[in-house]
Amino acid sequence: MIRRQRIVAILSDFGTADSYVAEMKGVMLCINPLLSIVDLTHEVHPGDIRQAAFVLWRSYRCFPSDTVFLCVVDPGVGTARRVVAVSRGDRLFVGPDNGIFTMIVDSDDFRCHEITRPDFRIEPSSRTFQGRDIMAPACAYLSLGVAPTELGPEVVKPVRLKLSAPKIGARQIAGEVISIDRFGNAITNIPAQNMQADNLTSSTTVYLRQRKVGPIMSTYSQVGRGKPVAYVGSCGLLELAINQGSLSRTLRVARGTKVKVEFHGD
Amino acid sequence: MIRRQRIVAILSDFGTADSYVAEMKGVMLCINPLLSIVDLTHEVHPGDIRQAAFVLWRSYRCFPSDTVFLCVVDPGVGTARRVVAVSRGDRLFVGPDNGIFTMIVDSDDFRCHEITRPDFRIEPSSRTFQGRDIMAPACAYLSLGVAPTELGPEVVKPVRLKLSAPKIGARQIAGEVISIDRFGNAITNIPAQNMQADNLTSSTTVYLRQRKVGPIMSTYSQVGRGKPVAYVGSCGLLELAINQGSLSRTLRVARGTKVKVEFHGD
Amino acid sequence: MIRRQRIVAILSDFGTADSYVAEMKGVMLCINPLLSIVDLTHEVHPGDIRQAAFVLWRSYRCFPSDTVFLCVVDPGVGTARRVVAVSRGDRLFVGPDNGIFTMIVDSDDFRCHEITRPDFRIEPSSRTFQGRDIMAPACAYLSLGVAPTELGPEVVKPVRLKLSAPKIGARQIAGEVISIDRFGNAITNIPAQNMQADNLTSSTTVYLRQRKVGPIMSTYSQVGRGKPVAYVGSCGLLELAINQGSLSRTLRVARGTKVKVEFHGD
Repeated sequence: MIRRQRIVAILSDFGTADSYVAEMKGVMLCINPLLSIVDLTHEVHPGDIRQAAFVLWRSYRCFPSDTVFLCVVDPGVGTARRVVAVSRGDRLFVGPDNGIFTMIVDSDDFRCHEITRPDFRIEPSSRTFQGRDIMAPACAYLSLGVAPTELGPEVVKPVRLKLSAPKIGARQIAGEVISIDRFGNAITNIPAQNMQADNLTSSTTVYLRQRKVGPIMSTYSQVGRGKPVAYVGSCGLLELAINQGSLSRTLRVARGTKVKVEFHGD
Repeated sequence: MIRRQRIVAILSDFGTADSYVAEMKGVMLCINPLLSIVDLTHEVHPGDIRQAAFVLWRSYRCFPSDTVFLCVVDPGVGTARRVVAVSRGDRLFVGPDNGIFTMIVDSDDFRCHEITRPDFRIEPSSRTFQGRDIMAPACAYLSLGVAPTELGPEVVKPVRLKLSAPKIGARQIAGEVISIDRFGNAITNIPAQNMQADNLTSSTTVYLRQRKVGPIMSTYSQVGRGKPVAYVGSCGLLELAINQGSLSRTLRVARGTKVKVEFHGD
Repeated sequence: MIRRQRIVAILSDFGTADSYVAEMKGVMLCINPLLSIVDLTHEVHPGDIRQAAFVLWRSYRCFPSDTVFLCVVDPGVGTARRVVAVSRGDRLFVGPDNGIFTMIVDSDDFRCHEITRPDFRIEPSSRTFQGRDIMAPACAYLSLGVAPTELGPEVVKPVRLKLSAPKIGARQIAGEVISIDRFGNAITNIPAQNMQADNLTSSTTVYLRQRKVGPIMSTYSQVGRGKPVAYVGSCGLLELAINQGSLSRTLRVARGTKVKVEFHGD
């Protein structure tokens, strides 16, 4: 029987100028030559676990439900930090246990195993490139049907980052910018489900720091060219942008910049 | 019977630092897990429809004749601009109807359909990321054999950009630079077929602005290192470069810089 | 019988903003639509054959043993330099004969053939983009089982670069930095096998220029944050880094910077 191959999606901070990502791909293809490989991104800022956790969270649900995610943002490589495989439903996530999977292990329906079994790695393993020598082989074996339980002992409490949560009140939500994209758009930590009014456009006002941006619109072009606009973005979070421009450059917005939504009474 | 899978080639201005491109790939792989995906480029300058149209034009003919092209340079996302599927021969092109397909719909042998049918999109669709929620699913369904006519009503006059055409005279052609590549080489809008002399090298003189570059050569190294050179480039257009250097940096050449070819009488 | 498809891994200095890499992929997929394509990197500095040779050397062994490598760093394109196919075991390497394969042809177990047969190229071939018109088609045909001997005459002495070799003495090794990676880590030309002492940590001292870095450690975190560290890297060469920082930026290290290892007597 011909089974379609599982997909491995890769997230890293390796960039694409060096051959690190390619070496991980080569190692996986040696173990499972029919593997289908997709890049999430390799341009996470070096060592930025928080950014990696966000990118993984916003993208993983777009992939087939049995995808294996290889996540290598690993500033503690070679230290005592564990290498783990997290399973949630049919999805599998392999990477360092440093908080990168915080938003994956945020409910009770996950299992986590440390990857310790020497049969599923390259020996001798490098102490400085375990993405290639331990994590990539583990992904390839998982893609072939090896169960996560075979890789090593269960980890009950994987490492979680403390994420900034928005403060949700009756009349306002106070949050902050958690990501800036290529277009200079600012993604906040304020989820759309906290703003389910009948008519957001007439019933809300969004503030960037102390600056009034306006009500929540449904797309960029509802404000004039060069004007700031707030809207519910494509990952279900409140975003701010400048129509046809760069909010982050024009208004010097960065991760941590404060954003507030006010609801108006009827 | 095992059919080979169709290829989807993707062109965007999303860059590769964010996960936008990966999300489109994930969505397509959910619909057609056997799809073969190739990146054209994702580094089109944000919102630069003209550059996107050029990159698509120069590259699409290199691909198998039944390739599906997903083209997402879409500054008007969420506005009334249409999302369309253009077919030309077996090739299919999906993207916003904003002029990105100008050089594809430049003859009469195309058909264009608006993508309106809700069955072939992700619902609810984001108003700010229709590349993922409308265009990517459409590509995946097309790759499975859905006919473009099933996606929505025919569009008779898709949007076309006004492109700068070279002025072709008996003794000279006046054109301009339309693209600069990584090496600093300048690609002009002057097609090789307008220069079919027996011996271009002895019968032409190329000018960059007022500066005499010399006759048309056949490759860089026919001039000394560091010297400017004109030649017919790999997409059939007149190009200018500096042998082993960067023309755009050295001589401050950009899109719009004037170029002239003079033909000498016998 | 269903055979798994061969992999083509691509190395170039084309960057990813232009469509050059995509055009090579399209050409290969026209010839072998089932081909599996992996990028090594496309960000080799324009024309930097030495860097390309290093990246190829460090990554090729990670790939399946019948991989075809398409290597296009080709500042002499269109000149009399040959285009060649090098075979070593089942691995095949296609590119310009300009030294890019120096570390592949460093022993006697290779064969090299010039690619001259017009049947295996695109005609007419561009004089400025032979990566697309000659090398890519050759790779695709090789992936289908065409023998390198069919492509053209044997080349007995392919071009080799003069690589800087470390000076290995009884009590010290003097070498230099040959590559800087994204993290600012410096990779030297000093191989680990020249340092097989029982206990490198107690028996060696590494110097960067005149500056004492310390003994050889096994990973970054064995020194304090912000401190320089020497270790055997993931490609088997001595490397220097700053724990959680950038050595190249902090200490202005570049290719050619001198590194010395001293061995202490017992």
